[in-house]
Amino acid sequence: MMTKVGIDLRGGDYAPTAVLEGLEKALPLLQNQTQVHLFGLEEDFQNLPSGNWQSHRCSEVIGMHEHPVKALQLKGDSTLLRAFKALKMGAIDVLASAGHSGAMMVASMQVLGPIPGISRPAVVSVFPKLNGGKMVVLDVGINVDAKPEQFLEFAKLGKAYAQSVLNIAEPRLALLNTGEESSKGNLLYQKAHSLLREGESNFGGNLEARYLYDNDFDVILCDGFTGNMVLKQTEAFYNLATKRGISDPFIDRLNYEEYGGSPILGINGNVILAHGASGPEAIKSMILSAESFALANFVQQITSI
Amino acid sequence: MMTKVGIDLRGGDYAPTAVLEGLEKALPLLQNQTQVHLFGLEEDFQNLPSGNWQSHRCSEVIGMHEHPVKALQLKGDSTLLRAFKALKMGAIDVLASAGHSGAMMVASMQVLGPIPGISRPAVVSVFPKLNGGKMVVLDVGINVDAKPEQFLEFAKLGKAYAQSVLNIAEPRLALLNTGEESSKGNLLYQKAHSLLREGESNFGGNLEARYLYDNDFDVILCDGFTGNMVLKQTEAFYNLATKRGISDPFIDRLNYEEYGGSPILGINGNVILAHGASGPEAIKSMILSAESFALANFVQQITSI
Repeated sequence: MMTKVGIDLRGGDYAPTAVLEGLEKALPLLQNQTQVHLFGLEEDFQNLPSGNWQSHRCSEVIGMHEHPVKALQLKGDSTLLRAFKALKMGAIDVLASAGHSGAMMVASMQVLGPIPGISRPAVVSVFPKLNGGKMVVLDVGINVDAKPEQFLEFAKLGKAYAQSVLNIAEPRLALLNTGEESSKGNLLYQKAHSLLREGESNFGGNLEARYLYDNDFDVILCDGFTGNMVLKQTEAFYNLATKRGISDPFIDRLNYEEYGGSPILGINGNVILAHGASGPEAIKSMILSAESFALANFVQQITSI
Repeated sequence: MMTKVGIDLRGGDYAPTAVLEGLEKALPLLQNQTQVHLFGLEEDFQNLPSGNWQSHRCSEVIGMHEHPVKALQLKGDSTLLRAFKALKMGAIDVLASAGHSGAMMVASMQVLGPIPGISRPAVVSVFPKLNGGKMVVLDVGINVDAKPEQFLEFAKLGKAYAQSVLNIAEPRLALLNTGEESSKGNLLYQKAHSLLREGESNFGGNLEARYLYDNDFDVILCDGFTGNMVLKQTEAFYNLATKRGISDPFIDRLNYEEYGGSPILGINGNVILAHGASGPEAIKSMILSAESFALANFVQQITSI
């Protein structure tokens, strides 16, 4: 069966150049049954190498600093919105973009819609752990003003993701916090802790952030503001190590260019959101992980929570 | 003039053993004019090495998991409360403890009181930067449910600290956030950003957390929950590097055992709060930084904001 990977050529701070260069790197690495669908402006298709790709010529672009709702209302022929519509129609199996994260969020809700049981989607990131395993962290960027009840949704989405994508049969869940005791954190985290304690059988309590890379949990829960800070601070540390000339295989895995972007969970469609500052290497990873995400078929498996 | 450094021998997860060992390491390194005042139980004073110290024999200890307000009400002869009272009376110039941070907070407010213009104190931490400088980060632990208006207080306290302790004449201030644009972050950070923009002439905008260790700001503002997470995640990095066998002088400076604890700012007294998990090395640093903090005489200089 053919896997159709949709790519927004105009998403990201360095689009379209970085996206086109990343695409060139990714094309030879994709599986034979994978077809790439490119959403770009006319000029973007002129110097593309041959390969199994199809063009979707658009006339508009949503800039990185536009108001998301307004931009989506006004720019019906933008690369981003056209790609979302194609995903909705089944013309593509997955959509990947390093574009405006707010606009992708709004389009996810308005064009694709949340799955039953989910009030708002969440963005997930997979981190390496010192013990050799991986852990799922969410939300890492969208729900910056999350309500305590949303942590139960994050728990269900994270658990499903750990099961279907990381093949962990019984994921252990933890709430990221400033300490292990249930009284730690702010009001949001105290309330989330007690809701998780009551409502989630796989909940193992708080994970103190000092053990972030060294713990036995599979799914780490946090609000979107805190999760995004954790992601950015991890990047700060990777940059620090690079500047200090430190070469270490584990630290190399903290490089966001290797992540390949973050799936948006809880919506009716496979969407991968990559770092706005993605260079060609990060775009290559984004495209490859979009292919894997479509093949794992997370959305088909998790039709409701 | 004599500097009187008060130490709570019963503060911390590993008290009194770790505190006594740390004290032994610190005693020979203190200045001649420094006198140490020890608040402990009778048995703590039995095997102490000779030196310029005075004992304050107490009969009670506030445990690390007690309810702060209740513990302070019930344990009038506890090492912690006795030390706070001594500071209030002027019997000591500075108080250092790795004890219950909540109880220290409550005692700071109830026994010492906030300085005019400050609604609640803040805990400050000094981080090294890749460019060789240092930066002040606050709040890193107390105001976990901060209001936007408190960021203006953090700004004033952080600026005063950078000026009087780090000798930076015109500190540049930034709000820690998920991105540079003023619209970034959650509602709290968006509101804090606009208040700082209006009310603080040295405010330079948001610092995206990916540049945490590599920027040109002197004072980094955040709420106590986020700041504590940043501190803990820095600890996670340090632990990661240690486990990976990485030896680097800059990363060594991220070790909290070197910090020497975090001053509580905005109160009528010099108080240093150290990490609850402090071992002897961290306690030694705490005592030395308490001495420096008393000598810098921050509180005398900043009697109101």
